[in-house]
Formats: sequence, C-alpha cells, structure tokens
Amino acid sequence: MATINTNYQKLASGYLFPEIARRTGIWQKNHPGIPVLRLGIGNTTEALPPAVCLAMKQKIDELSDRSTYTGYGDEQGDTYLREALVAYYQRYNVQLESTEFFVSDGAKSDAANIQDLFGSDNVVAIQDPAYPVYVDSNVVGGRTGLFNPERGCYDGFVYLSSTEENGFIPVPPSEKVDLIYLCSPNNPTGSVATHAQLKAFVDYALEHKSVIIFDSAYSEYITEEGYPHSIYEVEGAKRCAIEINSFSKFSGFTGVRLGWTIVPKELACENAESGVLNAMWNRRQCTFFNGASNIAQRGGYAALVGEGYAQSRALVAYYLENASIIREGLKRVGLTVYGGVNSPYIWAKTPNGMNSWDFFDLLLENCHVVVTPGSGFGPAGNQFVRVSSYGHREQVVQAMRQIEENLKL
Amino acid sequence: MATINTNYQKLASGYLFPEIARRTGIWQKNHPGIPVLRLGIGNTTEALPPAVCLAMKQKIDELSDRSTYTGYGDEQGDTYLREALVAYYQRYNVQLESTEFFVSDGAKSDAANIQDLFGSDNVVAIQDPAYPVYVDSNVVGGRTGLFNPERGCYDGFVYLSSTEENGFIPVPPSEKVDLIYLCSPNNPTGSVATHAQLKAFVDYALEHKSVIIFDSAYSEYITEEGYPHSIYEVEGAKRCAIEINSFSKFSGFTGVRLGWTIVPKELACENAESGVLNAMWNRRQCTFFNGASNIAQRGGYAALVGEGYAQSRALVAYYLENASIIREGLKRVGLTVYGGVNSPYIWAKTPNGMNSWDFFDLLLENCHVVVTPGSGFGPAGNQFVRVSSYGHREQVVQAMRQIEENLKL
Repeated sequence: MATINTNYQKLASGYLFPEIARRTGIWQKNHPGIPVLRLGIGNTTEALPPAVCLAMKQKIDELSDRSTYTGYGDEQGDTYLREALVAYYQRYNVQLESTEFFVSDGAKSDAANIQDLFGSDNVVAIQDPAYPVYVDSNVVGGRTGLFNPERGCYDGFVYLSSTEENGFIPVPPSEKVDLIYLCSPNNPTGSVATHAQLKAFVDYALEHKSVIIFDSAYSEYITEEGYPHSIYEVEGAKRCAIEINSFSKFSGFTGVRLGWTIVPKELACENAESGVLNAMWNRRQCTFFNGASNIAQRGGYAALVGEGYAQSRALVAYYLENASIIREGLKRVGLTVYGGVNSPYIWAKTPNGMNSWDFFDLLLENCHVVVTPGSGFGPAGNQFVRVSSYGHREQVVQAMRQIEENLKL
Repeated sequence: MATINTNYQKLASGYLFPEIARRTGIWQKNHPGIPVLRLGIGNTTEALPPAVCLAMKQKIDELSDRSTYTGYGDEQGDTYLREALVAYYQRYNVQLESTEFFVSDGAKSDAANIQDLFGSDNVVAIQDPAYPVYVDSNVVGGRTGLFNPERGCYDGFVYLSSTEENGFIPVPPSEKVDLIYLCSPNNPTGSVATHAQLKAFVDYALEHKSVIIFDSAYSEYITEEGYPHSIYEVEGAKRCAIEINSFSKFSGFTGVRLGWTIVPKELACENAESGVLNAMWNRRQCTFFNGASNIAQRGGYAALVGEGYAQSRALVAYYLENASIIREGLKRVGLTVYGGVNSPYIWAKTPNGMNSWDFFDLLLENCHVVVTPGSGFGPAGNQFVRVSSYGHREQVVQAMRQIEENLKL
C-alpha cells in the first residue's frame, strides 16, 4: 500500500504565480478585448543577446554533424563554462575553483533542491517576505509544522522580518538556527545588503555552525558602488555559505534555462568537515540530474565574455530604466516605493493600509495592470505589492499612464 | 548547527559511470596514444535529426526578436508539445490527457525525483539488476537501511532477480511492497516484458495498492510485434502506474535534455484518491522546477512529427544495427548474450564465472574496449557486462574485431 509524502499536504495553497494567472484569467474572460499589462511575474521580455543566439546556433550546427556531435556532458557542467564562471567571479576579487561550481537548469531548481543536503530536523530561517521556493521546498522536506492561518506562517520556521524600519534587510536571528536563506538584491523587496549586513550573517553562521543559502540571481542589477555582488566578498563566507545564481535575469535565459550553484570546498557544518558538502552536492547532481542543456551552456558562455557580456549588460540597463520609470510613476500617484535602483523590482506600499491581494484586485480592475501581491511572499509583505520592471518599454510606460489616470487614492 | 542528511552517507560508492571513467582514465594515462573504444555508457553518438536542428534554430530566431521572444514557459511543458505527446501515445491505442503529461529536462531527473511523492516508510521493490538511479534516489529518500557488502544489497529494498532462468523479467514479489520500479525494454539486460508479464505486475499493484514506476525510455527500440510500448496498454495501469520516457535515446537528446513523465489522474494509492498524485507532481514541478528549455522543447516536438519522426526512427535503426553487430560478434567469440533485439543493450555473460569488474578490466586491458560491469546495476549482474550499441559504426566494428582477435577465453 503506497502512501504519499504527507508533507505535501502541509503546503498552504497553490504556488503564488499560478494564483495570479488564475485571477487574471478570470478577469480577462469577463472583460474580453481589454488588454492587461503584466508587471507581475519577473519574466524577461526582450530579445536574447545576438552573441548568445549565435553561439547556440553554432552548437546546434555541431550537433547536426556526427564528427562534432556530443551526447551526455558532465553533470556538473561543461568545463569551459565553469572556468568562465571562475573568471567571472574574479572581477569581484572572489577566487573559486571550477570544481566548486555546479551548472544547472536554473536557480529555481537549485534553490529548491539544496535543502535535501540537510537533515529534516534543521531549523530554517528565511527573510519575510521571501521567494516562495525557499519556503515550499523546506515544507516538502519536512522542516516545518503546519501552516498557521492566523499568523500567515508555517510553524517551525524562523521568520526574519524585512520591514521599512530595517530597510528590508533583517539582522541575524536572536535564537539559534541551522539554515539561513538570504537573497540580495532581494526578491521581492528590491533591497540590497551592504558588506556589513552580510558580514553580520556570516559571523553568526560561523559562530553557530549554520549554513547560509545565498541567492544572488539579481547581482548584475547592482548599480551603486560598495554593495557585494557575491557573499564570498565577505571573509569567512566560503566556510559557511552556498551561493546560487542564474543567467535568467542577467541575459534573458528564463525560458532557455541555465543557472549555477557554488558549494565551496571549505564549507563545513556540525557533522560534515570541509569538502563533504561539496562532495554531497556533486553526488546529488550526478544522481538526480544529468547536466544542463548543452545548447544553453554554450549560450551561457557567450553571455559571460566579450560582446555577449556587453549585450547582456545592455539588457540589464534596459530593465533598470524600466524600473526607474515605474518608481517615478508610482511616486507621482503618491505611493511609497522602495527598491528599483539596484534591483528590477519595486516594492510599493499599498495605500491606506489596504491588504496586498485587495490592492492587486484594485490595480487589475481599475488600471488593468497585474502586479504581485506582497503577501504571496510572506506575512510581512501583506501591505506591499511587487512591481516588476520586466516588460516592453512601451507597456511599462502605458501601465504607468493607466495607473496615474485611474488609480484614485 | 546545520547537520547533513545522513542518508547520503549510506550511498555505497560513487555512481557507476564516474567509476568507469576513473578506471578508463588511469588506463589511458598508462597507455598513451592507444585509442579506447567506448561501449560503456549509453551515450548517443550520431548527429541530431536535421528536422530537430532546424526547429531549434527557428526557436532561437524567435528568441532573438523581441516580438516573438518568450521567457518562462509552463512548468509542465509547452502545450503544443504535450498535445503532440498525447497523439504519440494514440498510436499504441493509449488515450491520455495533456494535463497528465509533465515535460522535464530528462528521464533521469524524473526517475530520481518521483520517489519524493511517497512516504519515507514505503517499501521499494526494484529489478535486480537495475538502473542505479532508482536505487540511489530511494537511499537518499530514506527508504533503505545500510548497504550490506556481503550481499551487495541495501537492507530494506526488495530485489526482484532478473536471471537467465526467468528471461530477465521477474514475477511480482511474494511479499507486499509499496513502490515497484520496472524498466522495459530493460536497462541493462535488454529484455522486454510481454503484455502478460506487465499485466501480472499491474494486477499485483491494484491488489496491494502499490504504485509502479515504469521507465519506458527505450520503447522506440522494440522491433518485434506484440510487446507493449507503454504500460498503459495494460488495462488498469492508469490506476496504479507512473510512466517516464525520454527523447534521449529516441532522437539523440542526451545532451540537449528532454523527457516526460505521465501521472494519470486515475492514479491512486492508500492515502490518496484519484487526482491527488497528479496534483502533487504538478505542485512538485511548479516548486522544484521551472520548465524544460524552450529550445529543447521545440526540438522535441519536431522529433515526434513528420520528417523528424522518420529521421529519429532512422537513428534508432542505426543503433539497432550496431546492436546486431555486437550481438553476433560476441556470439562468435563464444560468449552467451541476451538483448540487443528490442533494445540497444547487449547483456553478455562473463566467461568462466568471472566477476563483472574483472571482465571489464580484461576487456579494457586486452581489447581496449570499455563496457559496463553488470554488478554496477545490482548483485544479479555480477556475472554479466552490458555492451552498449551507442557508437559510430566503424568503432563498433573495430571493437568487435579487437575482441575477436584479443579475447582469449
């Protein structure tokens, strides 16, 4: 008699974005012919860089000829790509070895799967609000109790509130925790941690033998000086942190799929000396994964070097200009906004203490603009919405026009 | 104090293929300049079908233009591909809905991840020998005791011996088990289950409310009439079986990465009525995965229809001709061989009761040919090696020549 993993039953509700799609779909059905402007999902909209396209086509040409065809690659990723990633980190004065990199089909997969390296009794701390994948994967991994509808939280998690008061970067917890998820530049709040703020977490982790899971998927969006692009810019971080990153937002790979995870050889924890976690993730990837698409990997390499890098940087600049337009537009209608400077996301406070799904519905109904309700990222997001700068310029401008004309506060 | 998932420590040794690569690498280092012929890993070697390459390049062209660019797709796979898969199964008179298909980055990922849907106390039955991923993923999932070096087995698994006596297709277990992994055409033995043999497992599963994980990654290699290509050709299978398949061996996607899993809505088990497991896998994929590469998906569609399908069938025919050459060559040197007719794999008995790693070393040393030791797939494989037909024709012919000339039995 097969039985299911009952941890799945603890999951409170459908994943955030399907719920947004559902509500938007219903509205569209009831309002045929009226276009909806989508600033909800962080989904890239502009063309892939030409150098990336060219490189991927060249790989397909190689695959179309038996003398240059390749089948299975290394589960850890192609060596040329891992070496390019080593060089990529050297611009931040971070020295890593290629065998500390694990190329994957994207940061989401890695962010969800990484928890499997740790015991189910580990106590998990997450920023509140946070990318739902950190939460849901640990629910399935058995590290929580039930969802508490009154608090809007899972029992067993330690929530680190990211609020206006702390600039949306919390301090380390007062209690002892084992795993800490950090994301900077932050999804959804658009805030970015300083060196000192990250150092506080690294010091905490080293003191308590905790492991930090650091999501830097938006690091290319940092425009201001002095913010770390990698947690390994902080001394000691290699002994306590795993870093996850992606080509999705940097170079438009959301649909092409490519990311990477760094598990330093120095990383250790209570019952695993240096090297063990690196070897475990290697074993995990060799058993549960068969390498990222070789076509995507060739494209990823092109994004890291020469013209492809410049073209990717131009893509990031395009979305950051969108972010600036959104930020200024929302300010003009009187909303309080955060983020959007070192991040593609604007974190906008709802007017008059409105809750975030109500404000979502209001913006959809009156302005025909889709955003992401902050409460979908955790209880501390309940009076915020996330506005994404991923969209065509003309649609972003139009969305701001519709909000300015139709949002009555 | 973070602690590791100690189930990883139960894993007996490195994954099979890295160990083969290690031994081959040492031999090559000691014998520079002598070419090694690889019939070990089931890794495709021939060019991708032209129609597949064309389709993927067209998708890249679309991605290079903002008016046709697409970002994140559905986690379950693109609708046009899932509908093509529905049509693909209709040729076997199997009727499925597109929402029962989940497109992924490959069968290996799905075969490893599917166990996460089930409780850690489920008793798992596997064919012996079997693809190591079924075993290792369940070790990590906590469904076994320790590896027993004397028996060459994990405590807690139920091993269904596939032997010469039963034609390498075992009967259902006498005891009660919860999850049953079946692979037909079988990797590594090359055997294929009849309708009656599969029906015995389906009847068992329905009686005991077990769930069958059916791996049909080699179904396109069935050349003889009367063997099921899908477990859903057996009545009642939708109520008790998940099926996993891949574009890797059918159309050369080993490096491009694309596969699919079918979780029928009728599927149920002890504590989950019909629909629950389909919804759980949907939730799992939406949380731990972000869709297969959109380039690979366009290629996969091309492999299923029209010219692309014919070209993919020609690829399969090429490898099957290799299989025939291997089969006949090994017979001529006096080895007893199985498989290679409805499968790309030949399962060859070692001479004089030699154990399989010794025979691996002998073939490498004397013939410079790499095969896969049968014991890497389980204790019942200890007096067999798997010979793969994936290779250029001239290398397969050369390998057989070297075996015929240098293998002294």
